[in-house]
Amino acid sequence: MILEKIEKPNDIKKIAPIEYNELASEIRSFLIENISKTGGHLASNLGVVELTMALHLVFNLPKDKLIWDVGHQAYTHKILTGRKEFFSNLRKYGGMSGFPKRNESRFDAFDTGHSSTSISAGLGYVCARDLKKEHYSVISVIGDGALTGGMAYEALNNASRLDTNFIIVLNDNKMSIARNVGGISEMLSNIRSSSSYINLKDSVVNKLYRLPHGDGIVDSIKHTKSNIKRVLMPDDIFENMGLYYLGPFDGHDINKMIQVFSTAKKIHGPVVVHIVTEKGHGYKPAVRNPSKFHGIGPFDIASGEVLAKSDKATYSEIFSQAITSLAKEDEKICAITAAMPDGTGLTKFARWFPDRFFDVGIAEAHAVTFAAGLAAGGMTPVFAVYSSFLQRAYDQILHDVCIQNLHVVLCIDRAGLVGSDGETHQGIFDLSFLSHIPNMSIFAPKNGQELKKALYFATQVYNGPIAIRYPRGIAVDSYDDFDSEIEYGKSEVMYEEKDIALMAVGSMVTAADHVRNKLKEKGLNVSLINARFVKPYDKEAIDNLTKNHKLLVTLEENVLAGGFGEAVTDYVELNSLDIDVLNIALPDDYIEHGNVTILKSLAGIDSDTITQKILKAWEGVCNE
Amino acid sequence: MILEKIEKPNDIKKIAPIEYNELASEIRSFLIENISKTGGHLASNLGVVELTMALHLVFNLPKDKLIWDVGHQAYTHKILTGRKEFFSNLRKYGGMSGFPKRNESRFDAFDTGHSSTSISAGLGYVCARDLKKEHYSVISVIGDGALTGGMAYEALNNASRLDTNFIIVLNDNKMSIARNVGGISEMLSNIRSSSSYINLKDSVVNKLYRLPHGDGIVDSIKHTKSNIKRVLMPDDIFENMGLYYLGPFDGHDINKMIQVFSTAKKIHGPVVVHIVTEKGHGYKPAVRNPSKFHGIGPFDIASGEVLAKSDKATYSEIFSQAITSLAKEDEKICAITAAMPDGTGLTKFARWFPDRFFDVGIAEAHAVTFAAGLAAGGMTPVFAVYSSFLQRAYDQILHDVCIQNLHVVLCIDRAGLVGSDGETHQGIFDLSFLSHIPNMSIFAPKNGQELKKALYFATQVYNGPIAIRYPRGIAVDSYDDFDSEIEYGKSEVMYEEKDIALMAVGSMVTAADHVRNKLKEKGLNVSLINARFVKPYDKEAIDNLTKNHKLLVTLEENVLAGGFGEAVTDYVELNSLDIDVLNIALPDDYIEHGNVTILKSLAGIDSDTITQKILKAWEGVCNE
Repeated sequence: MILEKIEKPNDIKKIAPIEYNELASEIRSFLIENISKTGGHLASNLGVVELTMALHLVFNLPKDKLIWDVGHQAYTHKILTGRKEFFSNLRKYGGMSGFPKRNESRFDAFDTGHSSTSISAGLGYVCARDLKKEHYSVISVIGDGALTGGMAYEALNNASRLDTNFIIVLNDNKMSIARNVGGISEMLSNIRSSSSYINLKDSVVNKLYRLPHGDGIVDSIKHTKSNIKRVLMPDDIFENMGLYYLGPFDGHDINKMIQVFSTAKKIHGPVVVHIVTEKGHGYKPAVRNPSKFHGIGPFDIASGEVLAKSDKATYSEIFSQAITSLAKEDEKICAITAAMPDGTGLTKFARWFPDRFFDVGIAEAHAVTFAAGLAAGGMTPVFAVYSSFLQRAYDQILHDVCIQNLHVVLCIDRAGLVGSDGETHQGIFDLSFLSHIPNMSIFAPKNGQELKKALYFATQVYNGPIAIRYPRGIAVDSYDDFDSEIEYGKSEVMYEEKDIALMAVGSMVTAADHVRNKLKEKGLNVSLINARFVKPYDKEAIDNLTKNHKLLVTLEENVLAGGFGEAVTDYVELNSLDIDVLNIALPDDYIEHGNVTILKSLAGIDSDTITQKILKAWEGVCNE
Repeated sequence: MILEKIEKPNDIKKIAPIEYNELASEIRSFLIENISKTGGHLASNLGVVELTMALHLVFNLPKDKLIWDVGHQAYTHKILTGRKEFFSNLRKYGGMSGFPKRNESRFDAFDTGHSSTSISAGLGYVCARDLKKEHYSVISVIGDGALTGGMAYEALNNASRLDTNFIIVLNDNKMSIARNVGGISEMLSNIRSSSSYINLKDSVVNKLYRLPHGDGIVDSIKHTKSNIKRVLMPDDIFENMGLYYLGPFDGHDINKMIQVFSTAKKIHGPVVVHIVTEKGHGYKPAVRNPSKFHGIGPFDIASGEVLAKSDKATYSEIFSQAITSLAKEDEKICAITAAMPDGTGLTKFARWFPDRFFDVGIAEAHAVTFAAGLAAGGMTPVFAVYSSFLQRAYDQILHDVCIQNLHVVLCIDRAGLVGSDGETHQGIFDLSFLSHIPNMSIFAPKNGQELKKALYFATQVYNGPIAIRYPRGIAVDSYDDFDSEIEYGKSEVMYEEKDIALMAVGSMVTAADHVRNKLKEKGLNVSLINARFVKPYDKEAIDNLTKNHKLLVTLEENVLAGGFGEAVTDYVELNSLDIDVLNIALPDDYIEHGNVTILKSLAGIDSDTITQKILKAWEGVCNE
């Protein structure tokens, strides 16, 4: 086993070149073996094994700065930087993160998670380096999918002005998570098909590679640019923007990549190195179905089948069913996704209504303003998006949708704690960033059935900007008997007693129900209200509660600041209502990766902790 | 006067072609005359007179949809759609908006204000049109400056897939507000210099123009694409992305543009029409200094000098001075602007420290993550930005700066009501969208002197993400005697009495002082606290206030939801503190254009209204 020799950072530099391919193969087996047990990102990691090895061989980490866009493809990087042994606890609470983390290793130059940030961050490092007169290389590795995000383009536009070295590795696997879309994708495809891989033996790259390091090479490249162009630079977007372009190269040919990166390192200017990789390379089930093996739970290696699949429906699946059947009746409904047709449950809609389905690429900002345009043009757009990615479109919601009060429906999936993806992916801010936007309405269903009703309400009854937020995973299938019609701004009384009132948002209705049972065991009287609308919240219901309740408990899976509870508290205080308030919400902090049950308990929003908090507050009320 | 014939929408279609140039000239005089009195956007509007006329002549508004990116260049459009008479009340409260507004005219197809949204919105209209089987043209007019924004690129990437007509007019005036930056800018410049304006007589455009309307033209274009390419399509970014490209054309030659737009209308596919215009065209002072005449107050037409210039310093000027002198001592300080070097006060810094100054274009998202990279590389970046534009970088602050707790300083100018630019530009959400972001700190200075101290604190003392927010315009120069050192998370007691405590944020300290005087005239005892830190707010100070105060009044120039007052109220309620709270803040609504004093009064945050509210609340306290 060559992989056994990889224990500390930079151990790869001691490996004989002849053993590189064997090492790559062993890393693949290690990744498949481990991820089949822990779950994690597989296809993207299998694609960049040789690429990562080549980068580690050519560059001098951690002095050189290597920035992984999105970051879920950094597993080989973690193996090569002394973190092999931590893979058994990958993405578990207290275990290794599935993303680069500066506080996990000094070999991780920049934390990533959301797409298209690496060129901006890398450019920051480059400018800092030059200002401090330091000497190191900066390498941003970005996928072709991430290139559909506008930030990447803003950064390229700025990088083009550099008069100093900056290496952008375009990891072109022809996909984002799903099949890639748009003009950029087509352009890359044209490049791939029109130019066979560069044969290094006779190429200019090879000649450059042999030149001694130094200023000579700069002049050499500058003078021969028109020649290089013919061999190496298709007339493409990068060149037009003033960036050097090298490629495309086979991303599974490690020796070629070593030569290419060694060349790129010497170029005095910003250079794009175009590497073509295969998602899932070396593991057939992942090659055949890279989207399924993008992020995956534990699976059987031989068959590629996921273990322990629940046959209960997820919220995404219920949404999928609901929007498809609504769209059969209502021809105005359009569905939009930002490169997540599978994750958000829009694949079925796309099959049935291809004309009304829009996958805009990793471009949430465009998605929202595009939706505003569709609405202005008379359609009813539904943008299905993960909570943490919708953060990218805050201004577009505020500025393009809500000022004009346009009928745009946001279906916010993965709202609340998402678990193993950690800080960057927790959907715990949406109530806060949406609640203060004028004209926005926010609904949170208590279970799968209510999600369906909410979608009906949002598309058929209501006529303005409205968001429906629901959690990741299996939908709650209890409480179907609580089935009152949705009325704008109205909550749903589930149990009406006295003394203590629990007013719970969406996912917290289940927790509140458990809490209620625990409190009742203690002999207390407890009402349970499903808040339904976070904005506008039900002021009339709160007024009513004050008549025979002494403690109002708000419960939400969102940070406290700017969320539901704070608004309700403000209402109670400013109107001098005669009721005490207790807010159950997430603390003002980022929440790391781990099992959601563990995270909830640590954050104090599990039913035991909530019960304790309420008992304490109730004691206070009784002593008043 | 030909302009007299322009009264109703589409009256321009009755004007004889021979009179077009005279009309253009009269429109320019009208604009100069009016804006010299009311103030407004001048240079950009003078640049697009002929362009707008040509669009109105070729297209059939309001059936065809014309979308102005940013929208401050829509004055001629307003003149041509029956709004000439409203120019005397331009941007005044109750008067005509300086931007397109759907609720002002059905000829305004989409509200704009922030940059780079028009292609996304236009694409929405195009898709809605085709789905509804309607027939109209959609024209998005976007400046070359706005093309530096990532959203525009996300939209182009999507537009490239269209198999239907969509016209994108690139209004290339070689500038955003200030000189334009980056690779895109250079590319456009290369196109302009390498290709002389197309001579229509012999060009393919002309041939196409003569072809009858119909499907034939589509095939014709498709088949001759390789020929057109040679004449009309430089190898550029648009073509690489799969968009048809026509240009460049002289944007002051109205007859040429009429031909070009008539051609573009017939193309079956997305087409970029590249028009070169001159900012300020026809008025020498504006041509010489387009940045000054971008948005300008009343001015003398003959000299171009601004009237009624105050010699008191603005907050931007104080910031300008402060960052420049700090940077002389501290070589780590870098300054970043998103295309607003003049507005934010960074022009001086740019002159002194060109290496440490970064104008990234209209690219706020990139700006923030670039700042994060600079900080990770050991520098101290200061991003000076208008409050409403920072909305564009919400996710980057949350995801790239604050998770890693990086030392990035946000200097938020134009925070609070900005006045005549209206809804899209009011800086009234920043406290709400920043307060719930973990690790973020927010400071608001009460006057110019405190802004200087805050910048010193943020760059030299504190070491984490921190925002300083200050209003548009002349800095408060009172209260210099209140000069206590800034301590993290601590407020400043200005007047310590009892009964009523006013806790005011930044700009509201002055109002609170006036309110305090009014209340004292009524014989009440009033303490005044300058909150300084909105996050973390000063809990200890609040605890202390409860000892001898019965009413705590929070004051902020921000919406109530998610802001300072709501957080303070929550603290008081959840800790059962024995004090009543009154929140003075802006209502949960957008606030239109108008004089800031009027707007404040309408929103109930003027000192008279506040005094009344406090007297009423105090009555309640006394009756408890």
